[in-house]
Amino acid sequence: MSIQSLNQESVVQRLARTRALMEQNGIYALLVPSADPHLSEYLPAYWQGRQWLSGFHGSVGTLIVTPTFAGLWADSRYWEQAGKELAGSTIELVKLQPGQPGPLDWLAEQAPQGSTVSVDGAVLALASARTLEGKLKERGAVLRTDIDVLSLVWADRPALPKQPVYEHLPPQATVSRVDKLAKLRETLKQRNADAHFIATLDDIAWLFNLRGSDVSFNPVFVSFALIEPDRATVFVDLEKVGVELRDTLQRDGVNLRDYTEINSALAALSAKTRLLIDPARVTCGLLNNVNREVTFVESLNPTTFAKSQKSLDDAVHIRQAMEQDGAALCEFFAWLEAALGHERITELTIDEQLSAARARRPGFVSLSFNTIAAFNANGAMPHYHATEQEHAVIKGNGLLLIDSGGQYLGGTTDITRMVPVGTPAREQKHDCTRVLKGVIALSRAQFPKGILSPLLDAIARAPIWADNVDYGHGTGHGVGYFLNVHEGPQVIAYQAGVAPHTAMQPGMITSIEPGTYRPGRWGVRIENLVLNREAGASEFGEFLKFETLTLCPIDTRCLEASLLTHEELKWLNDYHEQVRERLSPLLEGDALAWLQARTAALS
Amino acid sequence: MSIQSLNQESVVQRLARTRALMEQNGIYALLVPSADPHLSEYLPAYWQGRQWLSGFHGSVGTLIVTPTFAGLWADSRYWEQAGKELAGSTIELVKLQPGQPGPLDWLAEQAPQGSTVSVDGAVLALASARTLEGKLKERGAVLRTDIDVLSLVWADRPALPKQPVYEHLPPQATVSRVDKLAKLRETLKQRNADAHFIATLDDIAWLFNLRGSDVSFNPVFVSFALIEPDRATVFVDLEKVGVELRDTLQRDGVNLRDYTEINSALAALSAKTRLLIDPARVTCGLLNNVNREVTFVESLNPTTFAKSQKSLDDAVHIRQAMEQDGAALCEFFAWLEAALGHERITELTIDEQLSAARARRPGFVSLSFNTIAAFNANGAMPHYHATEQEHAVIKGNGLLLIDSGGQYLGGTTDITRMVPVGTPAREQKHDCTRVLKGVIALSRAQFPKGILSPLLDAIARAPIWADNVDYGHGTGHGVGYFLNVHEGPQVIAYQAGVAPHTAMQPGMITSIEPGTYRPGRWGVRIENLVLNREAGASEFGEFLKFETLTLCPIDTRCLEASLLTHEELKWLNDYHEQVRERLSPLLEGDALAWLQARTAALS
Repeated sequence: MSIQSLNQESVVQRLARTRALMEQNGIYALLVPSADPHLSEYLPAYWQGRQWLSGFHGSVGTLIVTPTFAGLWADSRYWEQAGKELAGSTIELVKLQPGQPGPLDWLAEQAPQGSTVSVDGAVLALASARTLEGKLKERGAVLRTDIDVLSLVWADRPALPKQPVYEHLPPQATVSRVDKLAKLRETLKQRNADAHFIATLDDIAWLFNLRGSDVSFNPVFVSFALIEPDRATVFVDLEKVGVELRDTLQRDGVNLRDYTEINSALAALSAKTRLLIDPARVTCGLLNNVNREVTFVESLNPTTFAKSQKSLDDAVHIRQAMEQDGAALCEFFAWLEAALGHERITELTIDEQLSAARARRPGFVSLSFNTIAAFNANGAMPHYHATEQEHAVIKGNGLLLIDSGGQYLGGTTDITRMVPVGTPAREQKHDCTRVLKGVIALSRAQFPKGILSPLLDAIARAPIWADNVDYGHGTGHGVGYFLNVHEGPQVIAYQAGVAPHTAMQPGMITSIEPGTYRPGRWGVRIENLVLNREAGASEFGEFLKFETLTLCPIDTRCLEASLLTHEELKWLNDYHEQVRERLSPLLEGDALAWLQARTAALS
Repeated sequence: MSIQSLNQESVVQRLARTRALMEQNGIYALLVPSADPHLSEYLPAYWQGRQWLSGFHGSVGTLIVTPTFAGLWADSRYWEQAGKELAGSTIELVKLQPGQPGPLDWLAEQAPQGSTVSVDGAVLALASARTLEGKLKERGAVLRTDIDVLSLVWADRPALPKQPVYEHLPPQATVSRVDKLAKLRETLKQRNADAHFIATLDDIAWLFNLRGSDVSFNPVFVSFALIEPDRATVFVDLEKVGVELRDTLQRDGVNLRDYTEINSALAALSAKTRLLIDPARVTCGLLNNVNREVTFVESLNPTTFAKSQKSLDDAVHIRQAMEQDGAALCEFFAWLEAALGHERITELTIDEQLSAARARRPGFVSLSFNTIAAFNANGAMPHYHATEQEHAVIKGNGLLLIDSGGQYLGGTTDITRMVPVGTPAREQKHDCTRVLKGVIALSRAQFPKGILSPLLDAIARAPIWADNVDYGHGTGHGVGYFLNVHEGPQVIAYQAGVAPHTAMQPGMITSIEPGTYRPGRWGVRIENLVLNREAGASEFGEFLKFETLTLCPIDTRCLEASLLTHEELKWLNDYHEQVRERLSPLLEGDALAWLQARTAALS
């Protein structure tokens, strides 16, 4: 408790120093998004200014500070966590809800005429800057993006990461960087562009078959890329790239320049350049360097589409990674089941044991996100993370939610399973069963190729809505190939915009993870990854279906079998049969016995 | 055949005269939409210029004529019909597909720099005019909306309709026009508007509790309305309104002026007016009359939302109308089943007999649309209509699709049923069963109040997609209350835009009508109307569910019972039990016996 109080005192002091600086610079409101110049999901410590200034540790949230108000906008995943972490900070939690006005709208309504709103342009997407500027203009207020207020108050700001860059090699890298670059240049030509600026780390890692460890969980490295007709340049801290790799890249037509030189490189683009950029994936600060006569061709990064469509060769490696991941989970679950009731097990122990089981598997590189091991009430926070200070001991009765994943050279995994502890209550089993119905309904679905993915969400939710239950997060996110565990462009979420770029294409990998959250009581989520596969063509067009990639038993002791239809039971039994067949060869002893017990058919 | 050839020769001649006039006026391309100044679905003959000029009789289609090309854009419902009707006309059928470029895009691509594209502004929605003007400007072409080319070549253009206007009275009219006007003025105030111009006939009929017979099937009358703070004016051919009704309206604060005076009334609006208009529901030609300093407040017509949300009192009358309609259908089906194989029955006979059965029912006013009786291959055209010249005799084996509906003082009906003729083939029964699965899946759904209706479509389609089957039309359209059989704002169609105004609210009535169309072979569609009802609130929000309003057996002889799940069979048997209970009191003799036989439980 004393540590927490100290932290919160500190946030109040930081806010005071920030406000003083704002006043000196004539700034009415300071906007601090959770963002960096790469608009990444996971930020290096250097760019975690919102966290530093607010004390809220959730990965997504927007802070606004005015002379008399400080508010943090967070979506439903973080309400409970933010409520706790902001207590005593004087920062108000503003609950962000789908369809409701967000922080930019708030600014547009509250900024007095003639006032200045400031945000560091280096971390503000061009699209957001345009929106905000437009809204403020209507109010007679102005947007200023040329001052980084935070850097002036943040004395002990961490350094940029220095982790080495390495190659993603065959056999797991199934297409060479030379071929990827050639394909990209073709696409640029088709879109009547001759150059392309990429700021997003996963696009760069994918395009050049390079990986790094600069941020947690995503195997990427801090960099920019500029693709021109006759050269491709990666801007990266040169100390992070070994001599051999530099030579290899050179041979493949890839130049390296220092990370900080991106500004001058953008400034040096000729006025005739037709530069393809994604306004949502580059920041206004960086683009301010570009000659005003350069023409912007705006679209999603072509690499975003290309990397989302995994090849048949990729799929072979992904299936192997899923088998290794499933085997690790079986070893962990066998240990957990034996240990529960005999040793003291906390949410932290779970993380340790599960991570260790994964680390023993061939091809394992790192976790793909922070393990969520959440017992009973903690499970009601979809993005809960246990800490040394606050975590639950697993004992008594209830439900343990474990959401975890790994990075393997041949794929990225992300799985959620429910574990019965003692005797789960009837209502808890009902929640688990209903959520599983949603998983099954969508997993079995076929659909027209090219359908906009948010339109599929109702298939997963219908069995859950049937009981007047719903959940605030999306049903599914795209998943990378030994890359980010959250990647677009597809998204299965009825709350998301139904944009043309969300179209379902063969080779995409998406999660299916409906849930039910009862604040203060428990939370349920079951998650598998699925691969879009061709389901054949008919007189009505081409169709896709899902192949369930994730291989791990769904604990039937959390289920009320009588609530499942015949078809649902059949899906579950078929799934368990496949899990048993594919994981058995990788297991022995207790883990194999556990697998056999937990995949027994339900009737 | 000779009549058809004559007609088509005539279309060629009309096109030649039109092109001559275009040349005289320096017009490169003429656009003829299916539209009138009220942007109605059903057009009085006076505004059926597209039909007259092209020879294509489908209700929706867009004609473009240039010196060297004539094309008619039609969606998949009309492809087969248009293909036949345009044969020999020199007009090319351009198949309009969701997500593909439409006629405006074609113009924007084909219009040469400096050329003029002409369309009668009186029938072009403001929103479409803006879009087209913008696209043409990019090409260096101009849009001209001040000349009605058609009226210059169309010598025998029909007169405007002269049918009397009458009151929609209590008990079926459950809210008075005085109350509706007061509510509307409140809404205008909330939106910071002081006046409102309405051109859409269903909005006007609903607001003033008036009805007419100026167009087929929709009980509306040709008119405009202007709502100001201190007066409400209906612009209508005064000869159509009896003296008594005029007095009644006067007492309720409603003025009448001649239909043609709308132009001068709009011109007379003071410069300070804040006029609420729906840019998609008023034409640019009419708005050209308005003082340029008037401020437009743009939104959907508030009446569109208001009339879509039927009250609990309305629902009572609607259920009664559904019972009467169901009873008429039972009488008709009993006759049909007895007559098939004994008398010569054509698709036209079906229309006659079914219409006569409806006409015998209390409260019946008219059909709500042209009956579609389509045998085998004709059923593959979703909007097929049999004519004296072309119609099928019902004999042999197969499927007869009957899509029909009635206008009753207490509601509007729309129902599609499949009738087995002889012995339907196995594949035909599979199609019927799969379509029924779609009907059941959506009919049983619950969903969050306010969900955007297109997002629900996948629930109906999932069981159909499962077999690589799909259909090109929407699954559901809104239905009026003794008003248009197609009304918004909700629409259950994944092809439709997922706009905020499509949100599901209590009291809305929507069709559920999936289908399967096999060109040249047969078509299947099953359609019920459903009412949005409160399903209660939980910690997860408020939910809605559907009450199936339509009452008529779904012929189980077209089904393959083994393909239905236990839950689907239960839904069907429960539905039939309710149909039998509610229709039996209204029937006797053969019709009652037919009802009892056709509602027998399936196992």
